Amino acid sequence: VNIELINTGAELLLGRTLNSHQQWLCRQLADRGHLVSRQVCVDDSSASIQRAVRDALEHADLIITTGGLGPTADDRTRDLVAGILSRKLVEDPTIVRQLEDFFARRGLPITSRVRRQALVPEGAIVLPNPNGTAPGLAIEVAINPFHLEGRPAWLIMLPGPPREMRPMFTASVLPLLAQKFPPPQPFVCRTVKSIGIGESMVEEMIHAPLRHLIDAGLELAYCARTGEVEVRVSALGEQAAALVSEAETVIRALLGKNVFGADDEELESAVIGLLTERQQTLSLAESCTGGLIAHTLTNVPGASAVFVAGFVTYSNEAKQRLLGVDEETLRQHGAVSEPVAREMAEGARGANGTDFALAVTGIAGPDGGTNDKPVGTVFIALAGPEETLVLKKLNPYDRETFKLVTTRQALDMLRRKLAG
Amino acid sequence: VNIELINTGAELLLGRTLNSHQQWLCRQLADRGHLVSRQVCVDDSSASIQRAVRDALEHADLIITTGGLGPTADDRTRDLVAGILSRKLVEDPTIVRQLEDFFARRGLPITSRVRRQALVPEGAIVLPNPNGTAPGLAIEVAINPFHLEGRPAWLIMLPGPPREMRPMFTASVLPLLAQKFPPPQPFVCRTVKSIGIGESMVEEMIHAPLRHLIDAGLELAYCARTGEVEVRVSALGEQAAALVSEAETVIRALLGKNVFGADDEELESAVIGLLTERQQTLSLAESCTGGLIAHTLTNVPGASAVFVAGFVTYSNEAKQRLLGVDEETLRQHGAVSEPVAREMAEGARGANGTDFALAVTGIAGPDGGTNDKPVGTVFIALAGPEETLVLKKLNPYDRETFKLVTTRQALDMLRRKLAG
Repeated sequence: VNIELINTGAELLLGRTLNSHQQWLCRQLADRGHLVSRQVCVDDSSASIQRAVRDALEHADLIITTGGLGPTADDRTRDLVAGILSRKLVEDPTIVRQLEDFFARRGLPITSRVRRQALVPEGAIVLPNPNGTAPGLAIEVAINPFHLEGRPAWLIMLPGPPREMRPMFTASVLPLLAQKFPPPQPFVCRTVKSIGIGESMVEEMIHAPLRHLIDAGLELAYCARTGEVEVRVSALGEQAAALVSEAETVIRALLGKNVFGADDEELESAVIGLLTERQQTLSLAESCTGGLIAHTLTNVPGASAVFVAGFVTYSNEAKQRLLGVDEETLRQHGAVSEPVAREMAEGARGANGTDFALAVTGIAGPDGGTNDKPVGTVFIALAGPEETLVLKKLNPYDRETFKLVTTRQALDMLRRKLAG
Repeated sequence: VNIELINTGAELLLGRTLNSHQQWLCRQLADRGHLVSRQVCVDDSSASIQRAVRDALEHADLIITTGGLGPTADDRTRDLVAGILSRKLVEDPTIVRQLEDFFARRGLPITSRVRRQALVPEGAIVLPNPNGTAPGLAIEVAINPFHLEGRPAWLIMLPGPPREMRPMFTASVLPLLAQKFPPPQPFVCRTVKSIGIGESMVEEMIHAPLRHLIDAGLELAYCARTGEVEVRVSALGEQAAALVSEAETVIRALLGKNVFGADDEELESAVIGLLTERQQTLSLAESCTGGLIAHTLTNVPGASAVFVAGFVTYSNEAKQRLLGVDEETLRQHGAVSEPVAREMAEGARGANGTDFALAVTGIAGPDGGTNDKPVGTVFIALAGPEETLVLKKLNPYDRETFKLVTTRQALDMLRRKLAG
């Protein structure tokens, strides 16, 4: 199956907005054995969209577009695709009712602009949009006059906002694909996630021991993200499940405790899972991460059962007042120091009566670094029932990456402790 | 100038790596008045790269490729472009010396694979790479046999790793562009950012009043993000600055306090800016946002001067102990209620001695909703020197979007108060 993506939106080509659709959609499709062969991003002009759609119809079996379905004048995809495929636009009464409901619930009138979103090219399948007003559309182009080899195509149009597009893709597009483009042979894919060792070290550790499986058809790929390395193993054919399963066993054995999960499992859900399993509680004292550890943990449903409370204490005064950090310790060692991290963690643990407390204090930058403690210096403390551990790290990145990497390191420190 | 970008790399189409080149390059070019008309991402196969390059040569005056210049077997861009343009590859002695230096400094031998990077299509300008081994290449295609209107083109090849590509673009490509493609006429672009009203309502309010400017050449585009709407106005030519400036004045007048900033200004930097200007301080008490408000504010450098401390209080017990919320209030009204939000904000303000305190309590879901208080219900309280205000909102989204939208609403509530 030849798959092409078309992302529309002038904002993507002005560099104002990051194109997150490409990665998300490619990932969703790849995990199901469908490789995207080409992705194109064009502005909202009629000429650009028409060239992109016609060009894709020449080569692809499946075309997915994002954007251009909304109510405003620069939303042109629906109309242009209908024109290219010579289909009339007809008003769909179900969509009209949904739009009326959507606006009535918000006490707003429905305008003619909004109502444009109920227009559907004849014969299109309507993909419901529970998170917005513009429905998606799927069109079977049984006779495709553009394809260079005369092949038919499916053309699927999705809305631009990710929080509308993603649930729609999962709920409506994946079942359609499974039905219309069943993989010709079984495809199995698994992503094993590790933290604490670099990408080339991971490769060094597992590549040779996986050699016999690679020779038997296993595909192996590495991907490094902030602080984490993902190993993706996949295979096609009757032996796919056995190959992938054996590969995962080998990888887990070799990487040991550096592995925190697989596929959709995140470090934060692993941590919440371990705490829940052990019926233990956690509190936080964050300085330089500024609430990101709390935010990350509370993204996990059910976090409230084990995460009792967090403090964000930027100032020395707040560290003393809320966490009981000693004034003398601050004066003697400075706020970014091993003893202050230790007192912060122990203070948070004591104040909240939790089994564990994590604390971080560091220099996020861009200012505030010294020769002794350059920007990126951070102390991470974990107070537990038996002892308090402190790690020193250097994360010399921009402010946001610093917060992200430090958060992963803190969560991983707790995970390793909980995993024994 | 018709500009097209070609990003090569299978990892980009597997969804493992985010394509950050697109945004970065588009932004760099747009800020200098060069709009990219199309961006294409293809895998590393010869057929894909050839189709993309030929296709771009048919339409574009300037083509920029990223990736495929390195030493490994799947780095094919250099060879393929030379083939398409019928140019011989010749070894560049300067590059050879640089490669030898680079490897000598690291005590490594130079292999034939590495030496491939010294091959240059005849007539190409070599763009030095101080951060890696693969140099960039710029080729003037004075006679372009592919262009549909017979126009010449420039083809610029850059390495894939962002930390090599970006400095090379700044140091070598920008000066070349300024010389070869001086902007024929001034280009001015401005993005006005609003919050609190939907995209179609924004268009309804401003489109007709901007009609005369659009007729005079103003370009207008809308982009909705979680809770915010961006209006981008741009124009070309002698009148550009005047048109854009008048458009901004009209938009700001019509949208009033819904406008929080322009271009790179974010809601959180606007809030920190207003607090700094007024020398006032803030504390936070977060339940359902779980630290995201603190995280968002502390992404702004300098936040520490006005943001004193934050509490993340998930449990009722923590709300009582840390914020002094009354047990009776919790029993009578429940944790997600107007009186509890009020007591949380006033408790945080009192505990930290700040001028303002924001508090949020709500149901992020997926569980915990009732008929009276469905998932998405949230109370946002703002305690200040004169009074405490409470807003009730319904944000019936997935957990992460709920947190994001609630955070924007809370920050906006404070911004409106501070802006008077």
